[in-house]
Amino acid sequence: RIDGRRLWDTLMTMAEIGATPKGGVKRLTLTEVDRAGRDRFRQWCEEAGLTVRVDEIGNMFARRPGRNPARKPVLLGSHLDSQPTGGKFDGALGVIAGLEVMRTLQDLNIETESPLELINWTDEEGSRFGHSLMGSGVWSGVYHRDETYALKDLEGISVIQALEGIGYRGEEPARPFEADSYFELHIEQGPILEREGQRIGIVTGGQAQVWYDAVITGQDSHAGTTPPSARRDALLGAARIVELVDSLMRERGEDGRGTVGRLQVFPNSCNVVPGDVRFSVEFRHPSGEEIEALAQGFPERARAIADALGLSLELRELFRIPAQPFDPDCVGLVRDAAARLGLPAREIISGAGHDAIYVARRVPTAMIFTPCKDGLSHNEAESILPEEAADGCQVLFEAVLARANR
Amino acid sequence: RIDGRRLWDTLMTMAEIGATPKGGVKRLTLTEVDRAGRDRFRQWCEEAGLTVRVDEIGNMFARRPGRNPARKPVLLGSHLDSQPTGGKFDGALGVIAGLEVMRTLQDLNIETESPLELINWTDEEGSRFGHSLMGSGVWSGVYHRDETYALKDLEGISVIQALEGIGYRGEEPARPFEADSYFELHIEQGPILEREGQRIGIVTGGQAQVWYDAVITGQDSHAGTTPPSARRDALLGAARIVELVDSLMRERGEDGRGTVGRLQVFPNSCNVVPGDVRFSVEFRHPSGEEIEALAQGFPERARAIADALGLSLELRELFRIPAQPFDPDCVGLVRDAAARLGLPAREIISGAGHDAIYVARRVPTAMIFTPCKDGLSHNEAESILPEEAADGCQVLFEAVLARANR
Ligand SMILES: NC(=O)NCCC(=O)O
Ligand SMILES: NC(=O)NCCC(=O)O
Repeated sequence: RIDGRRLWDTLMTMAEIGATPKGGVKRLTLTEVDRAGRDRFRQWCEEAGLTVRVDEIGNMFARRPGRNPARKPVLLGSHLDSQPTGGKFDGALGVIAGLEVMRTLQDLNIETESPLELINWTDEEGSRFGHSLMGSGVWSGVYHRDETYALKDLEGISVIQALEGIGYRGEEPARPFEADSYFELHIEQGPILEREGQRIGIVTGGQAQVWYDAVITGQDSHAGTTPPSARRDALLGAARIVELVDSLMRERGEDGRGTVGRLQVFPNSCNVVPGDVRFSVEFRHPSGEEIEALAQGFPERARAIADALGLSLELRELFRIPAQPFDPDCVGLVRDAAARLGLPAREIISGAGHDAIYVARRVPTAMIFTPCKDGLSHNEAESILPEEAADGCQVLFEAVLARANR
Repeated sequence: RIDGRRLWDTLMTMAEIGATPKGGVKRLTLTEVDRAGRDRFRQWCEEAGLTVRVDEIGNMFARRPGRNPARKPVLLGSHLDSQPTGGKFDGALGVIAGLEVMRTLQDLNIETESPLELINWTDEEGSRFGHSLMGSGVWSGVYHRDETYALKDLEGISVIQALEGIGYRGEEPARPFEADSYFELHIEQGPILEREGQRIGIVTGGQAQVWYDAVITGQDSHAGTTPPSARRDALLGAARIVELVDSLMRERGEDGRGTVGRLQVFPNSCNVVPGDVRFSVEFRHPSGEEIEALAQGFPERARAIADALGLSLELRELFRIPAQPFDPDCVGLVRDAAARLGLPAREIISGAGHDAIYVARRVPTAMIFTPCKDGLSHNEAESILPEEAADGCQVLFEAVLARANR
């Protein structure tokens, strides 16, 4: 069995890197803090006898050889980057649990048939460059490498500059190599497992998404002298689009998701009618058709709002992810492991995006969810119990072992 | 007569300090760029034989002695700070025209009866510390010095730190000394003079205002997993308040002003339901009763919006300025000067706030407006003609001279 105590201690040590005053983590992708997390992870991997490679988008692969070198590796992992005010477990759990799997195999002197590779994907969160699942997206060929290199953060720093800045632009091409399967453990980030008293979520797939980047432009002018009839207030337009996104979500009932999470006003001065507002929009739904319908309808309705106010709207679709079912065999291994361990478990669709969703386009994939307190994530108060982490890690261990020795 | 060419050249030289690529100026109060502008202004004043003092809030006073030292000084001036994407003339015109008045007196060897003092007020714009008319407000006793010192910008730098940082925390107490009168030349920042073909605005007073600082708080949570029923989206609440401010303005017709100019989202990440939004609100109207009615009604209606969404709203009234009439005698001198010079002129109420509005509580005051292209201000495209600047400066010269030799 895995060592739950060691798993928890390692999670807590990683959580010190970028720790925030409110008990969360700020380890934004490709920053100095992220570098510190990556360096520590690399050191732990090497101590566990693994060989670490880095690809050209900064994804890290830590390999443990198998008895049969001809066999394709079984992959496992998640991400170490966080939201600006993120929690200690979102991403880190899957990476550190993967490390615990490797350490346990080493302790028990177990040699698997297939090699294993533990992965830390670059920029899963998307909060810095506006593009979630970046590392796995480039690896699996969904995103173009050079376009991704050119993405910029709000300070104007590009992905490639940031990669080089922290010394994690590796040599290996970022493209799907031959792999047997991929397993990812993650906290649910929603309330379902906790509410039902389940310990394990057997994730059967991910929901569909569409993301936009929007810029709405009017004219900045003096707040004291510009009469109502002469105003072209970009913030008023953005406010109406925020309202539209919320109502499109609610029209779809409890399964709908629609969010404006990022918004910036220019010039952002109390006594200036705002001339430009830049903001993000994203919709999600378990049904791909609902997302297709939104992607048809939303841009037109947003543009009508802008037109009515004499504003211009630039709306760029960043990406569209169809609903992604996972591999039935891999999902079966998760189900079996939970049953064997006697853990209460249910099938679940992932509300969050995960690297597994892109990897699944190339490699048979499954995910394991564990509960989190009040379903809260992307929040510094994100919280889980050590036993929940240990049980998730044990399921991961057994599913990976079963697959690697098949 | 004043030297219109020298006035324009000096304006253009000042506009190089903090020049922006789009032809505007970014000379935010108490920054290094502001220091450069102040240093240059001080040098010009000394070259014109003036003696410069700085008070404890950074206001600069450049004195020219009068024949009769017992007489109270006639004050003139404006401000050198700008908006983040401001124009070349908002504020700078009044200061540099004041300098041109001083230079002309020196050239012509004119000694006035009363001393003259040319003033550069600190932080008129309010865009950095959220509080317009700061220097004149402290000087005239409307704002408390120590509370003003403690105000912070978005980076957490306080006014006192910023003053000391650029070496402009002076010795002289910031309080109203005995003065005969105050004259301020400024661009109109609105469309009225241009539309009517007027060259001079005889400003009879300023409109009433009320400003707020607002923080609305919900809970940041995962955009992909948080169902509609569990969301407490602070940005949705802020969007509805933006809409409310706009409709309260429109209810008052063309004389109403209501603006949310500054707004910041936390944590500001695409895939996080916003937990906090911080924003500014300001209303203006020529009628003090309308502003009193808004200050009565707005907070309650904003709070109802927050309550309905399960959000909490902190609304702090920053200041309330009643409608401020100017001094009939001083206004008369402006009217007379324009008439003597044969310049088309009309009476006008100021839509923008000006240092003159606070100074008027202590000292007989008048203002002179000149047109600006398309009424545009608080915008890099702000533009005026050299002849307009020269005519405004000549009216200032004559009004000041008439008063100082009375
Ligand atoms: N797991 C997770 O929080 N991923 C961030 C990507 C997203 O779902 O927006
Ligand atoms: N004149 C001017 O633009 N002042 C800024 C203060 C304000 O009116 O908001």
